[in-house]
Amino acid sequence: MRSFRVSLIGSGNVASHLGKALLTAGHRIIEVCSRNPETAAVLAADLSADPVGNPAEVQPGADIYIIAVKDEAVIPVLEQLKLPGSLIVHTSGTLPLIQHSSVRNGVFYPFQTFTKNIPVNFSEVPVCIEAGDPATLAELNAVGASISGNVQVISSEKRKILHIAGVFASNFSNHLYAIASDLLEKEHMPAGLLLPLIRQTANKVQLLHPEKAQTGPAVRNDEAVLNAHLKHLEAYPELHEIYQLLTRSIQSRKS
Amino acid sequence: MRSFRVSLIGSGNVASHLGKALLTAGHRIIEVCSRNPETAAVLAADLSADPVGNPAEVQPGADIYIIAVKDEAVIPVLEQLKLPGSLIVHTSGTLPLIQHSSVRNGVFYPFQTFTKNIPVNFSEVPVCIEAGDPATLAELNAVGASISGNVQVISSEKRKILHIAGVFASNFSNHLYAIASDLLEKEHMPAGLLLPLIRQTANKVQLLHPEKAQTGPAVRNDEAVLNAHLKHLEAYPELHEIYQLLTRSIQSRKS
Repeated sequence: MRSFRVSLIGSGNVASHLGKALLTAGHRIIEVCSRNPETAAVLAADLSADPVGNPAEVQPGADIYIIAVKDEAVIPVLEQLKLPGSLIVHTSGTLPLIQHSSVRNGVFYPFQTFTKNIPVNFSEVPVCIEAGDPATLAELNAVGASISGNVQVISSEKRKILHIAGVFASNFSNHLYAIASDLLEKEHMPAGLLLPLIRQTANKVQLLHPEKAQTGPAVRNDEAVLNAHLKHLEAYPELHEIYQLLTRSIQSRKS
Repeated sequence: MRSFRVSLIGSGNVASHLGKALLTAGHRIIEVCSRNPETAAVLAADLSADPVGNPAEVQPGADIYIIAVKDEAVIPVLEQLKLPGSLIVHTSGTLPLIQHSSVRNGVFYPFQTFTKNIPVNFSEVPVCIEAGDPATLAELNAVGASISGNVQVISSEKRKILHIAGVFASNFSNHLYAIASDLLEKEHMPAGLLLPLIRQTANKVQLLHPEKAQTGPAVRNDEAVLNAHLKHLEAYPELHEIYQLLTRSIQSRKS
C-alpha cells in the first residue's frame, strides 16, 4: 500500500476521526490547520503532525490536502491555500466537486456520524469519492481503500441525496431518541429503558427492509392506542404534531 | 427457580417471542389459543403446547394466562375466559391494569419491538409488571426475572408514557430508515449504504445522551445545507414537511 503524506484543514469531528483512521492505516499526517489554535494543537499532537493557524501558511509537498470544515468555509479556505497543482479534496455531503483550474480537485465524503470520543469502525464506513479526472479518482480510491472496505464512486448529485437520506436515518432518528428520553425523564423514568429497544430497532434493519420491520400502533391501525397517545401529547404541541405527521406517513406507505 | 405452567392467548409476534423465551427459561407452555387455527397450530407445535381455537375452551390449571393480542381484543378475550381465581395478565403498553373481580389481574409488558424471525435477546428487555396485590406482583416478578435481567414495577400511567416514548424511539425511527431507503432506491443507490450509519447512530446513544450525540446541519445551523436539502425535497411534499418539522424541533431544543 502506498503511504500518503496528508495535510488536514479542519480540526472538528470529521477531521479528527478521519485523521486518526489515516494515521492508523499507515499514512503520515504532515500538518493540521485550524483557525482555533487550541484544537489544532491538540489534534496535531494526537496525529504527530504540525499545527498551522492559517490556510495561507499550509506547506506544499503533501500528497493530499483534506478540507474538513463547515460547508460555507470550504471555498474561502480553498481560496487561501497556495498549493498549485496539488490534490485537494473536501469532505462535504452537499457541496459539488469544486472546479478550480490551478489544483486537482476531489471529494472524499465518509458517510457516517462523527462525535467526539465515540470510536468509529472506519473499515465499514462508505467512503464516497469523486474527482475531475481518472488519475485523481484512482488516488482517492487508494486512500479510501486503505481505511475502508466500502469505497464508492458517487456523483455530486447522488451524494447530495445520500446526505439527505443520512439526515433522515441518523440526525432525525437521534432527535427522536432525544424526544423519547425527555418523555421518560419528565416522568422520572430512566432514559436507559429505551436502549435495548433502540439497539433492536437498528439491528432489525440490518437483516430486513425497514418497511417489513415496521411495528407499532400506526402500521397496525390501532386507533385506540393512537388516540390515547395523541391525547397525552396534547400537552406538548410540537410532539403532537410530529406524532401525527409520522403516523400519517407510516399509514400512507401501506396504501 | 419455580417452573410455571403457562397458557398463551394470542399467536402474534409478542406471543411467539415471549412463549419461546419462557420455554427456554424452563417454564412449560400448556396451551396456545388463537382464532387463527393455522398460526395457533404452528406456535403450539414450536412450544410443545396444545392449540386451542376459542378462549372459552382454554383449560383451567395453568399458573399464569398471558393475553398477547391487539389492545381492542383484550377485554373481549378476558370476558370469554372461564378461569375463576386464575392469574391473568395482558402485555399491552397502553391498557390499564384491568379490574375483574373473579380473577387475579396483572400486566406483563416487555418493552421491545418484536418481528417475526428476528431473534430478541430477552435477557436485556425491560419487563414492566403491575398487579392488583403484592402476592401477584411477586409472582410476576419471578416470571419476569426468569427471562430478563431488567424487571420493572411500573404503573399504568407511566407504562403508557413509556409506550409513547417507544413509538418515537423505535416505530418512528424505523419509518425514517424506510424514508431514507426510499430516497436512495429512487436514485438507484443501494439502501445498504445506510446500515453502518444506522448502527452507529444507535450505538452512540448507548454511551452518550442523545442530546449530546446530535450531529448534522440542523444542530449546527448550516443554513446552506438545510436550504439545499429542502429544495431537493420540494418534489416530495410529505418528506419536505417532515424535514422542516424535525429540523425546527432539533433547533428549538438548543435555544
